[in-house]
Amino acid sequence: MTLESFFDPDSVAVIGASRDGGKVGHSVLRNFVEEDFRGDIYPVNPEADQILGLEAYGSVLDIGGEVDLGVVTVPPSVANDVVEEAVEKGVDGLIVITSGYSEIGEDGEEREQELQRIVQGTDTRLIGPNCLGVYDSFSGVDTLFLPSYKLKRPPQGDIAIVTQSGAFGSAVMDLLAEMEVGISRFISYGNQADVSEQELMQWLDGDEKTAAITVYMEGASDGDAFMQTARQVTDETPVVALKGGKSGSGKSAVSSHTGSLAGSYEVYRGVFRQTRVLEATTIEELFDYSRALAYNPPLAGKNIGVVTNGGGFGVLTADSLEQRGLELAEFSTATREQLREVVPDYGNVENPLDIVGDADTGRYEQALDILRKDEAIDGLIVIPLLQPLPLDSDVIDTIVNMNEEFPKPLVVCMTGGEYTGLHAKNLEANDVAAYSSPHRAAAAMQALYQYGEWFGDATTQL
Amino acid sequence: MTLESFFDPDSVAVIGASRDGGKVGHSVLRNFVEEDFRGDIYPVNPEADQILGLEAYGSVLDIGGEVDLGVVTVPPSVANDVVEEAVEKGVDGLIVITSGYSEIGEDGEEREQELQRIVQGTDTRLIGPNCLGVYDSFSGVDTLFLPSYKLKRPPQGDIAIVTQSGAFGSAVMDLLAEMEVGISRFISYGNQADVSEQELMQWLDGDEKTAAITVYMEGASDGDAFMQTARQVTDETPVVALKGGKSGSGKSAVSSHTGSLAGSYEVYRGVFRQTRVLEATTIEELFDYSRALAYNPPLAGKNIGVVTNGGGFGVLTADSLEQRGLELAEFSTATREQLREVVPDYGNVENPLDIVGDADTGRYEQALDILRKDEAIDGLIVIPLLQPLPLDSDVIDTIVNMNEEFPKPLVVCMTGGEYTGLHAKNLEANDVAAYSSPHRAAAAMQALYQYGEWFGDATTQL
Repeated sequence: MTLESFFDPDSVAVIGASRDGGKVGHSVLRNFVEEDFRGDIYPVNPEADQILGLEAYGSVLDIGGEVDLGVVTVPPSVANDVVEEAVEKGVDGLIVITSGYSEIGEDGEEREQELQRIVQGTDTRLIGPNCLGVYDSFSGVDTLFLPSYKLKRPPQGDIAIVTQSGAFGSAVMDLLAEMEVGISRFISYGNQADVSEQELMQWLDGDEKTAAITVYMEGASDGDAFMQTARQVTDETPVVALKGGKSGSGKSAVSSHTGSLAGSYEVYRGVFRQTRVLEATTIEELFDYSRALAYNPPLAGKNIGVVTNGGGFGVLTADSLEQRGLELAEFSTATREQLREVVPDYGNVENPLDIVGDADTGRYEQALDILRKDEAIDGLIVIPLLQPLPLDSDVIDTIVNMNEEFPKPLVVCMTGGEYTGLHAKNLEANDVAAYSSPHRAAAAMQALYQYGEWFGDATTQL
Repeated sequence: MTLESFFDPDSVAVIGASRDGGKVGHSVLRNFVEEDFRGDIYPVNPEADQILGLEAYGSVLDIGGEVDLGVVTVPPSVANDVVEEAVEKGVDGLIVITSGYSEIGEDGEEREQELQRIVQGTDTRLIGPNCLGVYDSFSGVDTLFLPSYKLKRPPQGDIAIVTQSGAFGSAVMDLLAEMEVGISRFISYGNQADVSEQELMQWLDGDEKTAAITVYMEGASDGDAFMQTARQVTDETPVVALKGGKSGSGKSAVSSHTGSLAGSYEVYRGVFRQTRVLEATTIEELFDYSRALAYNPPLAGKNIGVVTNGGGFGVLTADSLEQRGLELAEFSTATREQLREVVPDYGNVENPLDIVGDADTGRYEQALDILRKDEAIDGLIVIPLLQPLPLDSDVIDTIVNMNEEFPKPLVVCMTGGEYTGLHAKNLEANDVAAYSSPHRAAAAMQALYQYGEWFGDATTQL
């Protein structure tokens, strides 16, 4: 089988489904019920007749129909037994959420080896153990056992997340939900007893719903395999990775956290470069870069045009671009002449272009229309500050429309509070990446430039 | 006079007050009326009898009582005339919001020179022209002419903001309001025709409501004066500065933006170092550092303790600390022994301390109580991830209480969405700086370490 059953199964069994609202097995079952999972849902619990209005089964073996996906939430003492039954039943994919395996040391290692023996050579594939499992925004698969008030789910979108750390995964999912950044699939894969990070990346590479893959990893289980896979995947799909355990102290922390070997950071950096995996050094960069790459073609050159109604932000963006190795495009004479008609006399018509504080949407529209035709510009950073009265919400539509016709990268910088945030979400919903500060917008442009360097002016790439 | 009248006047005249809701002179008047300014409010407008229910005056000279503060919002063609009248009236402080002065080139320069001649040698001091003016969270002075749905006002607090760029100022005020970061005074000073940045810093240094000063500057009007002032101010009050116009292209942008000379960045860096002004390189750092410094003593050493219920965040924090030149403290034997009683068997008791995903508030309380007694720890980063079910809102109280008894720096890292954001605001309201990612928390610690290096273990300093 491919890994399809983990993401789009026709039927799911929650093995360890519980009537107790505080239990993992209850939360997972409720997710499937409440998110209108389109297939059959089978609660498995030997001590219940019904859970959440659904008939419960004593064992997965008692289920009459086929089971594509099984989610295991029982205690570690019985987890391997129910996995064995699931293999016997012929379940395609198993997500073992249960912890108490290799991450707890010796006792757990034995249990994990047994688990591996149970699935080895069978038709059943297994994600976990010790993981949050899978969230698929399209099919309704959701094994994240945390209530939505604590962990909001992001909307549908085209960024996939693969994470070794469940805590990392749950925190960033909640963060992205708040930013309304769209996610295709999320996988917290835990101890990788069977399905590995590489296989997941490979599957996402072929996934038409996914335009960019973000990875949080502490240590690869198999360095060579990772390298080979990454090389293939990045040929088609951008991969952005954040590596935990770069420092000496971080490395020791890794070995006690996921039990992985963090390995030498220098080696990882080399592998990332060779396989064209874009390295993020912070959580912010991880998603800033992913959004830029998911929504834009690569930059064909380093000449950036900047337009703003707030001069100070033009200055800071110029500083940040230079710091990131990019340059301000020199506007053509034609561009300057046309801008002269649009910008008030006391404003200037140089890059960064300050269309000044009394600019309305109309002036933005005119300026953008001039800039998009200037061939000296490889990409645009648009900085619509919404605090001044003359600029209204329509500027968002103007930018979205312009972006649809503009074959080059365009990102937005908007700094502000709630009102600004609402408009940033609107851009995000239209696949325009909005950043909360000049240095983040400039860093996103650097990511797009790096991609252009690696893959050429390849609009086929993204 | 000192600059007191700009911040806490007994009476204010809005010169150019308007009945037209879209006009600056209307917004400013309404701010004073709606924010319950405690003193007398005089609208000045020769064509109105009453505005917003207040008696209007034809000229500031027609006002019977004394006028401490005048806010000028009339067009540039008549602005100097009303300033002349205000000087004749003996107004203490004038905020000239009107633009059309030196920032627009030659014509404006003449107008500005005339403005300077008018106030020179008189008892009237002037902020502006071409500025947003002053926001004082305590007195209700608010000359920001932007409606609160576009520019929310931050709550009362002890961080002051001094900015050369109005657009920068309005965007960050809106941002800080959303984060509920408390502000004491905000000044957008525009062209500095009279009152300079240095004077403002000096006044804020003596202001008991201000614990830290943040500065956005593009070019100092008088480098020597800035240096002398900064040296004095930082002896008492931390100053964090973001310099716009560091790059070649940024510098040209500055000269067309505020008309300042951005000067050599190397020179500025030297000045910042010598005068112990902490340099921020991004907007995020500017307020991340200010909050750390306003709420904490400096770090006496570089050994940081980290505690989290999400292992991956411990790993990333260890990486970020090392990258910022700090170290993980080595827990004492006693600490480890005590932690062993608190952390489950399969968890470890090393730094970064992972009290694991099933930690509740009680376990956090026990762990913090052990860590705060370990003398090897110079400061603490606490990372309470709120996504897991067992950790509830009470952990915020626990951290706030612990912080009140803990004489060393403590900062929090919390990554997540709306629910996490609400709790971060709660910490902020209790003078605990919360950061949205490990690298921001580590950077804040670096700022506190730099301060410790400069001023020693001086709890008297902050």
